[in-house]
Order: sequence, then C-alpha cells, then structure tokens
Amino acid sequence: MSASGSSRAAATASDERLLRVGVAGYGYWGPNLARNAAQNIRIELVTIADLHPARLSAARRAYPAARLTADVHELLADPTIDAVFIATPPDTHCALVLEALGRGKHVLVEKPLATDVGDAERMVAAARAAGRILAVDHTYLFTSAVQKMKQYFDSGEMGDVYYYDSTRINLGIFQSNINVIWDLAPHDISMMLYLLDRPVETVSALGARHIDLEHENIAYMTLKLAGGALAHFHMNWLAPTKIRRTIIGASRKMLVYDDIEPVEKLKVYDCGAQLITDVEDLYGRLVEYRTGDVLAPRLDNTEALAVEVEHFVDVVGGRAEAISDGALGARVVRIIEAAQRSLGNGGVPERVPQ
Amino acid sequence: MSASGSSRAAATASDERLLRVGVAGYGYWGPNLARNAAQNIRIELVTIADLHPARLSAARRAYPAARLTADVHELLADPTIDAVFIATPPDTHCALVLEALGRGKHVLVEKPLATDVGDAERMVAAARAAGRILAVDHTYLFTSAVQKMKQYFDSGEMGDVYYYDSTRINLGIFQSNINVIWDLAPHDISMMLYLLDRPVETVSALGARHIDLEHENIAYMTLKLAGGALAHFHMNWLAPTKIRRTIIGASRKMLVYDDIEPVEKLKVYDCGAQLITDVEDLYGRLVEYRTGDVLAPRLDNTEALAVEVEHFVDVVGGRAEAISDGALGARVVRIIEAAQRSLGNGGVPERVPQ
Amino acid sequence: MSASGSSRAAATASDERLLRVGVAGYGYWGPNLARNAAQNIRIELVTIADLHPARLSAARRAYPAARLTADVHELLADPTIDAVFIATPPDTHCALVLEALGRGKHVLVEKPLATDVGDAERMVAAARAAGRILAVDHTYLFTSAVQKMKQYFDSGEMGDVYYYDSTRINLGIFQSNINVIWDLAPHDISMMLYLLDRPVETVSALGARHIDLEHENIAYMTLKLAGGALAHFHMNWLAPTKIRRTIIGASRKMLVYDDIEPVEKLKVYDCGAQLITDVEDLYGRLVEYRTGDVLAPRLDNTEALAVEVEHFVDVVGGRAEAISDGALGARVVRIIEAAQRSLGNGGVPERVPQ
Amino acid sequence: MSASGSSRAAATASDERLLRVGVAGYGYWGPNLARNAAQNIRIELVTIADLHPARLSAARRAYPAARLTADVHELLADPTIDAVFIATPPDTHCALVLEALGRGKHVLVEKPLATDVGDAERMVAAARAAGRILAVDHTYLFTSAVQKMKQYFDSGEMGDVYYYDSTRINLGIFQSNINVIWDLAPHDISMMLYLLDRPVETVSALGARHIDLEHENIAYMTLKLAGGALAHFHMNWLAPTKIRRTIIGASRKMLVYDDIEPVEKLKVYDCGAQLITDVEDLYGRLVEYRTGDVLAPRLDNTEALAVEVEHFVDVVGGRAEAISDGALGARVVRIIEAAQRSLGNGGVPERVPQ
Repeated sequence: MSASGSSRAAATASDERLLRVGVAGYGYWGPNLARNAAQNIRIELVTIADLHPARLSAARRAYPAARLTADVHELLADPTIDAVFIATPPDTHCALVLEALGRGKHVLVEKPLATDVGDAERMVAAARAAGRILAVDHTYLFTSAVQKMKQYFDSGEMGDVYYYDSTRINLGIFQSNINVIWDLAPHDISMMLYLLDRPVETVSALGARHIDLEHENIAYMTLKLAGGALAHFHMNWLAPTKIRRTIIGASRKMLVYDDIEPVEKLKVYDCGAQLITDVEDLYGRLVEYRTGDVLAPRLDNTEALAVEVEHFVDVVGGRAEAISDGALGARVVRIIEAAQRSLGNGGVPERVPQ
Repeated sequence: MSASGSSRAAATASDERLLRVGVAGYGYWGPNLARNAAQNIRIELVTIADLHPARLSAARRAYPAARLTADVHELLADPTIDAVFIATPPDTHCALVLEALGRGKHVLVEKPLATDVGDAERMVAAARAAGRILAVDHTYLFTSAVQKMKQYFDSGEMGDVYYYDSTRINLGIFQSNINVIWDLAPHDISMMLYLLDRPVETVSALGARHIDLEHENIAYMTLKLAGGALAHFHMNWLAPTKIRRTIIGASRKMLVYDDIEPVEKLKVYDCGAQLITDVEDLYGRLVEYRTGDVLAPRLDNTEALAVEVEHFVDVVGGRAEAISDGALGARVVRIIEAAQRSLGNGGVPERVPQ
Repeated sequence: MSASGSSRAAATASDERLLRVGVAGYGYWGPNLARNAAQNIRIELVTIADLHPARLSAARRAYPAARLTADVHELLADPTIDAVFIATPPDTHCALVLEALGRGKHVLVEKPLATDVGDAERMVAAARAAGRILAVDHTYLFTSAVQKMKQYFDSGEMGDVYYYDSTRINLGIFQSNINVIWDLAPHDISMMLYLLDRPVETVSALGARHIDLEHENIAYMTLKLAGGALAHFHMNWLAPTKIRRTIIGASRKMLVYDDIEPVEKLKVYDCGAQLITDVEDLYGRLVEYRTGDVLAPRLDNTEALAVEVEHFVDVVGGRAEAISDGALGARVVRIIEAAQRSLGNGGVPERVPQ
Repeated sequence: MSASGSSRAAATASDERLLRVGVAGYGYWGPNLARNAAQNIRIELVTIADLHPARLSAARRAYPAARLTADVHELLADPTIDAVFIATPPDTHCALVLEALGRGKHVLVEKPLATDVGDAERMVAAARAAGRILAVDHTYLFTSAVQKMKQYFDSGEMGDVYYYDSTRINLGIFQSNINVIWDLAPHDISMMLYLLDRPVETVSALGARHIDLEHENIAYMTLKLAGGALAHFHMNWLAPTKIRRTIIGASRKMLVYDDIEPVEKLKVYDCGAQLITDVEDLYGRLVEYRTGDVLAPRLDNTEALAVEVEHFVDVVGGRAEAISDGALGARVVRIIEAAQRSLGNGGVPERVPQ
C-alpha cells in the first residue's frame, strides 16, 4: 500500500464535494496542517480553534475567511464540518478524538496518537464503531524518500533484512513535559513498522537526564524484531550537530536515508556477502561483504504533508486505504510504552504486547 | 598525562643506546609495527617472527637486515632484545607476553590485551613483578585528535560530561573467530576511558548474527558511567557506508570527532543551556540549549603509531608514564567481557567489576 | 558601514509613522518583497501591482487588505505611498524608477539595477536630484555570513587580499531573455565590491550557449582589481550539482562562504606564508603557506531580505546610510556591461570605466 | 583505447623475460615509480640514480638489491637496462630522454614532458626514429574513475559535450621555479584531452603572483574546443581548502569527479533539457533542464600508478597501445605554452597550434 497512487485526477471531477475541515490547535504544528488544508483544492478550511488569543490572531491574518474559536467543542459540534485535524498536546488527543468521532467526524491526529496504550485502543475501537477514518499524522511516511524505500521493500529487491538503524539528534529548544523518546521516536518507529512490516518482540531502552531532571534528553532504544533483525534508535536533544539518518541493512540491498542532505537524500547500495574459507589463515574463515554501484534515485520535492493531506481526502472518499491509521498509531504507542518501562527498570528488555 | 611531551630532543643525545626490538607476528598489523620500529631513530629492529613462510618472505624484502624466524620462542629467548612488539592473534597474547616478561623484556602488545579478564590480570601482575613495561597498542589514543580532546578534558573546559556516543561502522572482509565487539570496541572503549577517566558501572549489549551464525556482526553497547553519563557504541561490519564518529556532549563544550573527514576531523562547539519557563505556554517549561562558534583546531598529521612507538621508547627509558598500560588494557577487557555476558542474556545490563 | 546597527528599538517608538509601501511586480521575487514588507512592523503594505490576473489573485489571497491594481502607474501616482519596491523585469526598471522618484517616492529596486549603464546613471542622478533613496536589492549583502565577512575586512584582520573566487552553478528552469551573467553575476559582483571595496580595472569573460542559442548558459568572468588581486566568477545554469561558494584568499585569513551548507556556512582560516630557501634542493626556493585553526562563527538565521527591508526603513528615516545604493548598483552594471563586451570579442579583456 | 584490458594473465607466462628498469630521480615522485616498479612481478628494478647522497641512502634502505649511482649517465649507459623511468626536474627531461632513446631504451617520463614545445617534439621524433616507447606519466588517466568516465564517452552515452570544468586547489609547500599552471595543469589537460578527444582552438589565461613575485600561484585558464565546448581550469596553490573536482556537462549525461571524496568519487547524472515556450509569461521562453537518478559506479581501488606501470609493460611488449604517449605529452605542453603566452599578454586568447 503506497501513497503514490493518488486519485488527484479523478478527484478534481466537478461532482466531488469539498471536504470541510476544522483544525484544532494552532501552536507549533497546527499552522502546517491549516496551510496544507487551505492549499488542497479538494478541502475547504472552515474553522480553526486554539486557546491562545495570540495564536488566533495569527490564524486570522493567515486565513481571514476561516471561522475562529477559543472553544474546541464549538468546532467539534459544528455539523457542517466533515473532518478534524487535531494538533493539540498529546495528553488531550484521546478526549478530543473520541468527541470528534462521536460526532461523526473523520480525524487526522498529530503523533503520538496517545500517551498510553489504553487510550490508543479506545480511539481505534471508537473509529471502527463509528465507521469513521482515524488517521495519525506520521508525516515522514509521505516523504518521497520513504515512499521510494517502500517500493524497494514491496518489490522484494531488498532480500533478508538484517537491521534498521536510526539516528535523530539535534540541538534546540525542547518541551519539558515529555521525554525525548515520546517526542522523536514516533517518527522513526512508524517508518520502521511501515517499511519492515513485522512484529516487534522486545524493547530495551536506556537514557539520561541532564538539564530537566524529570525527562530524558538522550535515549537509546533497541528492538528485537520477529525473524531476527535488530532495530536501533538514537534520540538526542542535546547534540551539537543535526543528524537524521536511517541505515537499513539487508542481504541484497542496503539503504541510507539522510534527511539532512539537500538533494541525494536516499542512497541505494547493491551488495552481497560470501563466506571465504582460507585454510592457510590462522584466522580461519573470512567473510567478504561488498557493495557495488550506489544509486541516488530521483525524488519528488512535494511537501510530505501535502501528499498526506491529499491521501487523507482519498481515504475519506473511499479511494485509498489509510497508510497511517489508528492501528499503526497504537502499535507505535505500545512500543514506546514498553520502552518507557525498560527505561524505568534500568534497561532490561521488555516484551511488546502484540 | 599526554603523549605530547615527547623527549625527542633529549632522546637523540649521542649517549642513548638504541632500543633493540623484536616483532612477533607479521600478519595484518605486524608490518605497521615493524615499519614504525624501523623508522624510529632510537630503535633497532632486530628480529621478526611469524609462522607463515609467505609473510617471512615479505618481511625479508622489506627488512633485509633483520633476523627472521618461524619460531617466536627463539625471538623471545634472544638476550640482546630489549622489547617485543606482539601482533599475534588475541588468544595467543597471554602466553607470549608472560614468556617475554619472564625473560626481562618490555612489551607492546596488540589490542585487545586478552580474551578474558583472568589472562589480562595475570599479565598486569607479571609486568609489575618483573619491573617491565607492559603497554597495549590502543593506537587511537596517540592520534592528534584524541590528544587535543584530552587537553580539553584536562583543562576543565568541557564542564559536566553528559554522554559519549560512538559509531564505528564499515563494510568489508572480517575475521570469523571473534565478534564485532571484540574486534572494534577496544578502540572506542580505550578512548572513552582515557578521555572521561571515570568508572563504568553497568554494560548492556545487544547484537545480531547474519552471515556467520556464531559471531555477531552488528552490536550496540550502552554503558552507565559513574556520575550519570551514558556511553554508547554502535559497531557494525555490514554497513554500506563507513562512519567513524564520536560525539561527546558536555555542559560547556561539545566535541565531534569524525575520523573519516580528511582535514577537519575534530570540531569543538561552544554551548550552554538554560531553562525558560513560559507561563503562557501550554507546554510549560522550555529548555533552550544552543551552540556558538565552532572551532576546528589544527591537528598534526604525524602517524599515530609513530607517536605511540616514540612514547613507548620514552616510557621504557623512564622519561614518560605509559598512557596505554596493561591496567587500561585490562579495564577494556573487563568491559567487553561484561558486554559479552549481556549479549548472552538478551541485553540485560551487567555490572562491571572494578 | 554594516547592516548590523539596526535601530529596531528606537524604531518601535510610538511616534514613528508607518512607512507606506507599494510593491510593483508580483512574479518570482515580488511575493518575497511583499511578505517582508507585510511582516515588518514599521511598514504598511498598501498596494500591489502586476499585469497578470493570476498573480493578482494570488496577491489577494495572501494580502486581503492590500489594494490591487493591474496598472503600475496608478500605484506610482498614489500620493499616500512613501516608497515603492520594484520587482518587474530589468528592462522596465529605468522608466518605473524615474517615474517613482519623480513622484517623490523612495525606491528599492530588484537587481540588476538596469540593463545598461546609461540607464543606471540616469536613475542615480534622478535620485540625487529628488533627494530620495534609491536602493538596489542585492539581497546577499544582508545575510549574516556576508555581514560577518565584512567585519573581518573592516577590522583589518584579513591582511592583503590575494583573490576572490566565486562559483554559482545550478540546474533548473531559466529565463531565456538574458544570459547567465546578467542573471547571476549581480549577486557575486555586489558582494565582492562590498567586501573588497576597491576599483575594478579590467574584465574578461568567456561563455558558451548550448540550449538557447542567443544567450550564454555558462560563463567565466575574470576581473583584475586595483592593487593586484584577481576576482573570478563561474556562473552556470546547466550544472548537475548546486554549488554556491566563495573563497577569499588573503595574507592573514582566508574565508570560505558556502551557502549550500545548512549550518557552517562561513569558515575562517588562520594562515600565513613563509619563503623557505633550501640550498640543498634542486628546486631552489620553497614557499610554505599553512593554515591553523578553522573557525565557523555562529551566524544569525534571520532572513536576509527581512534585514534588508528593516535597513531600508532605517535609511529612509535617516538613521543609517544605504549599504546597497544606486551607486553600487551602477558599478555592478558597469562591470557586467564590460563583461558583455569581452564576451562579444572572444574573451579579450575590457577596461571598466570608473 | 582503455587501460582496462590488461594482459596480466598472459603476462605471467613463464616464458616472459622480466623488464629491466632503471629509475632516474629519487626526489618527490621517483620513490613512487621505484616502488611500483619493484612491486610489479614483470619488472626487475635494476638501478636508481640521484644526485643527492641523502636520497641515495633512502633508496638503499628501501631497495638493498638495487644498484645505486649519482651518475645518471652510468644508468643510461647500462646495456642490460630495457627501460628508464625518469622523475628528474622538467627542464632536464629532454636531454635525458634523448640520451635514453639513443641508447635504445624505452622511456616513461614524469609530466610535464617538457618545458617547451620544441623539446617535446624532438623527443617524440626521437622515439619514433628509435622505434622505442615514449610514455608520459599522466597518472590520473589510469585511475579507475577516469577509466570509467572514458567508457561513458566511448559508448556515446554522454551526448553532446557542453563544458569541462576543473578545479584543483590546495594549500601547501610549493616549488618556486615554475608557476602553478606548469605544476598542476598537466593533470587536468591530459584528462580533458583523453576524455573529450577533440582539438583545442584557443587558450586564455589570467593569474596572479602573491608570495613568489616571479611565478603565478593562482591561475584561471579557459579553452575553446573545436565544436563549441568550453574547458576551464582553476589552479591555486594558496587555497584554504583542498578541492579536486571536475564537472563535465553534456546533453545526455553529466559527470562529477571529486577526487577528495573517499568513496563515491564519480557521480553520473542522467539529464535532459527542453525548451518551454510560455506565451503567458513576460519572460517569454523558458528552458527546463533536469536530472534524474544519480549513479555512483563502483570503482576499483588499485593504485593508478600500478595500473600505469602494468600498462607500460604491456605497451613495451606490444600487447597494448600507449594511452599516454609522447604525442599526448606534446599536446599538453603546446596548450600550456599558449596559456603562458596569454598570461604574458594580460589574458588575450592565444591560438593553439595543432
């Protein structure tokens, strides 16, 4: 299942009604959701809700035609709104999503879906019961690089997967009410689940707190995947240099996805291993593993969030199946919750419930 | 204690006798030891020993004046030899080092010092009893970059250390009688111990085997250090791209040492954190951590092994204290042994005996 | 004279009247001028003019409060407008600027100021006669990197300047009514004149046309500067890779400004040369020129155009002297015109009139 | 004609006599020639000549079995020597090469072949008359990257060639008896002639002298090639950063060869241009030129000089035609001589005699 089969052509048919969307939360990420809603020709941006007057003023300057409210319930109660994009703090997601679904609206909610698995499962069940779409905004899945990687996996060209190694480190202002895992891991776990598509057996995590003594600002998380592959995530808010790189090792191809690179973000390495037994050598067997040509496939520059919003309209319209649905969001939360338990017990691996 | 205070000037005084050196093992690393012995004007390269006729032929072409032997015991029995450079497989180190020390010779031995802690401790005790130098060839300690980093730590400019993060990954031929930790970790653990100079409390390690089913080709190792800092090591023989990078985070400076960079291998970041409490913000407190100027200090290009061999001559001559002695080598082995135990029990952290 | 001494604090004093600005031309660059006018708290964006209905619609969505017109003369005739930002095609600049100045308006005009020196000089004279500001939008001068370089030159730390070497190459859609020199050289010549501040004696230029047979898509331009330094510019629209790099060599410092680098855009090299005469050597004298530490100074991330617009308001208010005035714009045109002559005569150097 | 079809297999046949080689000049480059001669199993390194006692001592330590002499004529007079590798200063080449050819020896001579065209032509004629091989050591032609580029040109995949752009800049000790063009341009001109294989019509060059007042330390050289392509060379001994990069633009592929890159030295860009005429647009016609996938082909790591020496043995044995013969060396000298004239007349283009 990929995001590339967009039905944009069909969608512009004159008989399609515009999807009426409300945006709840206009802080850090909400403006991006609002902008992509406004720019999508199949969407009408109807209402923006936020508690802060300053943010509502900013919304007014940007979208003079949109209705504005400090009361999110007013937005959710509006019967003319078809779908809500929710970008409020994570611990408010569950109540808002349940309310929106209860009022028959489709939902696109910011990652992480929830701050505990119980909430996540309640939302998934409610969406199913209501027959409404619950999508989680794991934006990276909609980048051209991840879509291209997905093609390599789906085509079988990768061979056996050996490992998935992710580094996401940076320096900057960070929130102090969650730790670095809850902040950064949803990006990388959602990508890993989407690409590798296999169960996670155990998680171990170690971290440290240096500035804020309640929340980890650096953490390492290691996952054992069904079938023997390893996945590892380095997350760090206090790094002097910005790295966003994923290395995926497999038997026939290896991928390096470097999101900091301005152009060649994805590199595909041809490779192959062989065992050499050298009887003359004290060291006995030798393994030779070598790469051949390296390909940097041409990537599209479309903003990932624009692709995602277009895909959401398709999903709501029954033209596509959701790539990043509530079930994926719940799996991400389940893994992070297990990581949090491992963090609490000093790094002992924890089983991830399926 | 640094390698920079070389007594090269004093050493060239006419009254200093040349140090007579034998090299045991002329496989992968031995030729580098022999070459640096031969090029050092205070050393006379006397004998080279290796079991393989082809290697002895290569040694003959390179050092026609040296004595050659297939019998290492003949080398160790030679009363005219002052010091032995040992580059044989790790599991042969203990017997050869004990024999060399027993015959009154100083020793520079390849890393890892031993394949178990008992052996390592026996060698350290034997060196002390014999009053001879036991140095371990942790070559990286003698690079200009590590020496410069050491100055930053010794001067107190770093502030509180937060973390030590190391990535050493590559693709290539690898030996199959040890795993990737025993092969690569001695480099990074010795650097970490030298620079941070504090006890290691626990080690956890997770790895996977993909080609050779007996030995891990990828491993992640996380150490908790006394005082709360975290050290993490990513080691991988099956990576499509070569990375050798260490990031050290501390409260006043951060360092990035990238050994692949042709010139600016070391970067020093000025930094500082502050807690911002924004009462207006839903998210509550914010932490801002920012860097200022970045400095790439000028580094010397002298080959690290040449500096190390020069330092060894100084240590033998009583002019310097060993930077990389048997005690450091034993600490490295102790940590790797604990990592191996953690690997065996699925990643549960193991205490490191002091 | 630098852009850093902004009087923003003073400027926000309640007694300052907002500068009423009109934007003429809403094609490629006009939207950036309009956005920065709208975001500047000392400016009121009054009117936007463009010939194309589609562009006016885009302007209406973005600035619903602004007046819109397809007739630029209506904008220029509006007595309530204090200043005009002109981003129409280069060959329309002269007429529009003269009309604006004639109606007593200050002008910020897109680069190049004009397509021939006569026009450029007419505009400079008209501005002087009218007692109005004529500023040319050489945006790069207002980047944090160029301002920092200017400090190095102004402080005397650079020593004697040896050369200025610029590469600006890329691949993409390009206009076909001018050649690559007229398109790209204004950026780099304005920077060079601002930083080095010395007369240009001769220009030679060679280029080639490969796609559009009327206009060069690649060109090399070499300038001899008073005092012996050389300046060289490589401009190319058909390069497979994007490079925007300036290297400035001088006797005490060297600078590398790489605008593609995401963070360390500017690097400052300490350096020094010495002549070594080795009588033993067949080759006679040797010159050793070496660099020491490399510093990447912390740069501000403020958008250059925002700094420039702020500076323009200061200049209009008499609080600063224009960094990029009509005289600088005319010098740029004079050099390009000479380059064009050299291009026409096969690369023979042409004198640049002062 | 490529270097890849080595007849190494055939060559090791037991009936082939070893080629007996002498090396004249053991300064900067001679040791590399000697080492590659010594390592080639089809060559016997017989004699090394140098005027300096210190260099002869170094040669003795490295090659104890070789004959050593301070008198190059003794080497050239030795009837048992088949071929001479000459690495003496450029102004000595002509006399030594003529003497060697006169005594029936094959010659591999350091670049530049000569310091004037008359000498170069005399050597070429003498080699032809003597029926002996005259090869010029343009080492870069034998790198895996240049050989791979040559395949792209030979296969016709490149399309029409637009430009050849070379940057070779660095900082370091430099000789003071020649300028930067004579030192560096032979590398890049020989590559350009080998790859593009078309006549050079004119050359213009501009340079400057900053340290040594007799010889240029920076120079720019632009060549017009038959058929309309442009070739440009930036050579600089006083650059703070090391760049060795060639960009070749053509209609169907573009190549970037970056010799500083540790692994992906060569990148191949698919590309294509089209002219878009947009009647709506003020700017009239637009040209869109875009690249597709980028390929970094796998390159061999064999030392270029080893490939070259192997090729030389093949050429002497009649098994291959010389890639870098005297004629190529003479063309390089002819172009540099014309550049030198242009440098002397202030950059006016000079015709290159064919």
